[in-house]
Amino acid sequence: MRAGVFDSGVGGLTVLKSLVDHNLFDEIIYFGDTARVPYGPKDKNTIIRYSLEALEFFKNFDIDILITACNSVSAYAIQEMQEVAPFPVVGVIEPGVMAVTKRIDPDSLILIIGTNATINSKRYQKMLQKHGYNNLIAKPTPLFVPLVEEEIFSGEILEATMRHYFGDLKPDAVILGCTHFPLIQDAIKSYFHHKTTLIHSGEAIVEHLEQRGLAKPSTTTPTLKFFASENPEKLKKIAQKWLKS
Amino acid sequence: MRAGVFDSGVGGLTVLKSLVDHNLFDEIIYFGDTARVPYGPKDKNTIIRYSLEALEFFKNFDIDILITACNSVSAYAIQEMQEVAPFPVVGVIEPGVMAVTKRIDPDSLILIIGTNATINSKRYQKMLQKHGYNNLIAKPTPLFVPLVEEEIFSGEILEATMRHYFGDLKPDAVILGCTHFPLIQDAIKSYFHHKTTLIHSGEAIVEHLEQRGLAKPSTTTPTLKFFASENPEKLKKIAQKWLKS
Repeated sequence: MRAGVFDSGVGGLTVLKSLVDHNLFDEIIYFGDTARVPYGPKDKNTIIRYSLEALEFFKNFDIDILITACNSVSAYAIQEMQEVAPFPVVGVIEPGVMAVTKRIDPDSLILIIGTNATINSKRYQKMLQKHGYNNLIAKPTPLFVPLVEEEIFSGEILEATMRHYFGDLKPDAVILGCTHFPLIQDAIKSYFHHKTTLIHSGEAIVEHLEQRGLAKPSTTTPTLKFFASENPEKLKKIAQKWLKS
Repeated sequence: MRAGVFDSGVGGLTVLKSLVDHNLFDEIIYFGDTARVPYGPKDKNTIIRYSLEALEFFKNFDIDILITACNSVSAYAIQEMQEVAPFPVVGVIEPGVMAVTKRIDPDSLILIIGTNATINSKRYQKMLQKHGYNNLIAKPTPLFVPLVEEEIFSGEILEATMRHYFGDLKPDAVILGCTHFPLIQDAIKSYFHHKTTLIHSGEAIVEHLEQRGLAKPSTTTPTLKFFASENPEKLKKIAQKWLKS
């Protein structure tokens, strides 16, 4: 099976890593819209427009499924993409919510963090409420994105930023609602004294695809092809580094 | 006289404020490419492409001069824009360097801060060296951009970020090589114990335009028109706030 992975930039590599670690496909085509990243602060209409353009790109390949790794795209453009795509399109929000329902008690305090677009869309919140989760705090944490892009995964800037966003919150679970955040998951876990369950889009989507029969593990590591709207060399270099870790 | 001000987003409002404070034009058309901001991490070719598109937009108006407030555009696309524009196009780098030559001794230690694009272009460095300034430290400080966009102008995240970038440097002058940075100039001045001269693109360009006869002060505050590639209402709201302060 051949899958496409679409992201606004390099963040989706954390989702790609989960797919690769589980050998979920024979071949994966990754496209990052690096010339227009980040999507998180952008309008719904702009995100839809860019996502439909990316969809056209994926039509060049004979893919069996398209995974939108980006939470902002999953929050705002998934339906519009599904309406016109000749292949199934799967976002990360529904898998994230399903991962919560399997692990977390409905009375638990759940903290949802993500970009402004993802949090303001209220997609996580509404879907969790439908499943009986009402003890929710949703917080845009946009500064984590440039920190990760600067490869700041620990240290005093990150600590100060976590204090700024988290204060003395004590959530039972945190939904990492942005593909960049798994790269600072150790710092986040440690901030909450390792008492918090983290929900990771990459791991969630692997579970979701397997359960729905949308992917079969391959016997070998998938072949990877990388495309970017600018500087594909840089994307490949980051991919080499992140996929190893 | 009617001027255009082009910026990648809202940052150029700090340059607009200087023009307005000095009543430099009768009318100013501001365009922020908010759908594709930030330009700072992007490639030279992408920045040129986006800048030429913005130039086309300004051809809709009968402007006498176009000011590119964005340092990344000034660093990479100014020549390409000048070649095809039917009006003069002025960037902020040459004015910034001229402001240095008027205020700062050639032996002084000058710290140049800006986006990756601006610093990597080496435009400030080369132009300063031509004027005999060789004691230069150039540092990309990209995290200041999202901090300003989150309206974090003081506090522990900013302090930690300044320590990260500045350490125990003691520059005689700092070139604020990004339109976002004037909004944190008080914090930067205080970090350097108020012993450092800050060079501000907005003030530099006002001097430059007046000296070159490219602008005449008007007797009244200029009329302002705002355009954005997405969410113009948000741009106008921020403009109202920033222009007052």
